[in-house]
Amino acid sequence: MKDQIIISKATIDRLPLYYRTLRRSQEEGLEIISSEELGHRLGVTPEQIRKDLAAFGQFGKKGVGYFVRELIRNIGEILGLDRKWSFAVVGIGHLGWALVHYRNFKALGFHLAAMFDVNPEKIGQDIGGVIVDPIERIEEIIKERNINIGVIAVPQSQAQAVADRLVGAGVRGIWNFAPCKINVPESVKVVNEDLSVGLSSLSYYLGRML
Amino acid sequence: MKDQIIISKATIDRLPLYYRTLRRSQEEGLEIISSEELGHRLGVTPEQIRKDLAAFGQFGKKGVGYFVRELIRNIGEILGLDRKWSFAVVGIGHLGWALVHYRNFKALGFHLAAMFDVNPEKIGQDIGGVIVDPIERIEEIIKERNINIGVIAVPQSQAQAVADRLVGAGVRGIWNFAPCKINVPESVKVVNEDLSVGLSSLSYYLGRML
Repeated sequence: MKDQIIISKATIDRLPLYYRTLRRSQEEGLEIISSEELGHRLGVTPEQIRKDLAAFGQFGKKGVGYFVRELIRNIGEILGLDRKWSFAVVGIGHLGWALVHYRNFKALGFHLAAMFDVNPEKIGQDIGGVIVDPIERIEEIIKERNINIGVIAVPQSQAQAVADRLVGAGVRGIWNFAPCKINVPESVKVVNEDLSVGLSSLSYYLGRML
Repeated sequence: MKDQIIISKATIDRLPLYYRTLRRSQEEGLEIISSEELGHRLGVTPEQIRKDLAAFGQFGKKGVGYFVRELIRNIGEILGLDRKWSFAVVGIGHLGWALVHYRNFKALGFHLAAMFDVNPEKIGQDIGGVIVDPIERIEEIIKERNINIGVIAVPQSQAQAVADRLVGAGVRGIWNFAPCKINVPESVKVVNEDLSVGLSSLSYYLGRML
């Protein structure tokens, strides 16, 4: 059933925002929310919301709205958030440091299970109950803790080597912050994150507006 | 001329990657690059590259490839990178700290011109020659230094107040890392950055692959 669904990347990228906003609405006691109200809270048009959600099922009642709890459960299932993923961050520099302190991952059910670095000053540090381990222990710890996702926050020159070790250790997904392409077997999914994109797209729009 | 071009968000998001990869190719001494080679370096299909670049002009020679220097200049112009934007980061917590240390912004021509925080321990710190100023000075400094872009890296509860001050001070664009919608006048462009999206989309794909 699930495999028959084809959803655009843009829709998939909006689903976590829907999920978070619905959770917040639920905390406020809302049981039903209209696409207008949801759109208002998200800064997305009601039409876009109806289109996105229609792509994978019938979650609302016409003229009434969406049932908040049901929609949260459904989007959570679609995003695989019901699975409790564990992730490891490799590279505890400025960016890695920010990532391991980012609170919203936990709220989405992602568990920070390990951290790795080469710097002796970083190794042994306790961040929220997790210890920074030396990079030599990647394989052992990834297997031991059953970690599914590796986050690459090392400099570009080390990104491929780290990716190889993560793949060898058995991760199924890599979230890559290094500004370069990494090569992995087809069985491993890579999501590249590029912080330059945000500023560049602002620059694009501002250049057109001025 | 420029205003007649309509380009999809997905294409705009890929342009900075093209730009960076082309710059690196140029540094290696390449004068001409085929869409196959560019695709190989980017992890994007040659078809996608040809389609993206065809959307705003004729930059290559059939059977030869793209002229690297010309393409860099053109993409730079499209992205507005020839304008030398100045940006300010508000909130020097873990994420703000990572942003002000991120090197790729400078390589794209973005100039970090100011930083603001409320924490007395942060205020006065010198990061790469720029001093962290108290948040009370936003209006004065934004105007004085002619800053176009404000980056919001404060907690959600303060995001709207910071946005209001940035807009009041005259920024034209806001890059918002707070996990909430901010309201600004239509004349100001907002790009929302949500780090949860990367992990959630990995979760989505992995859920389908396992």
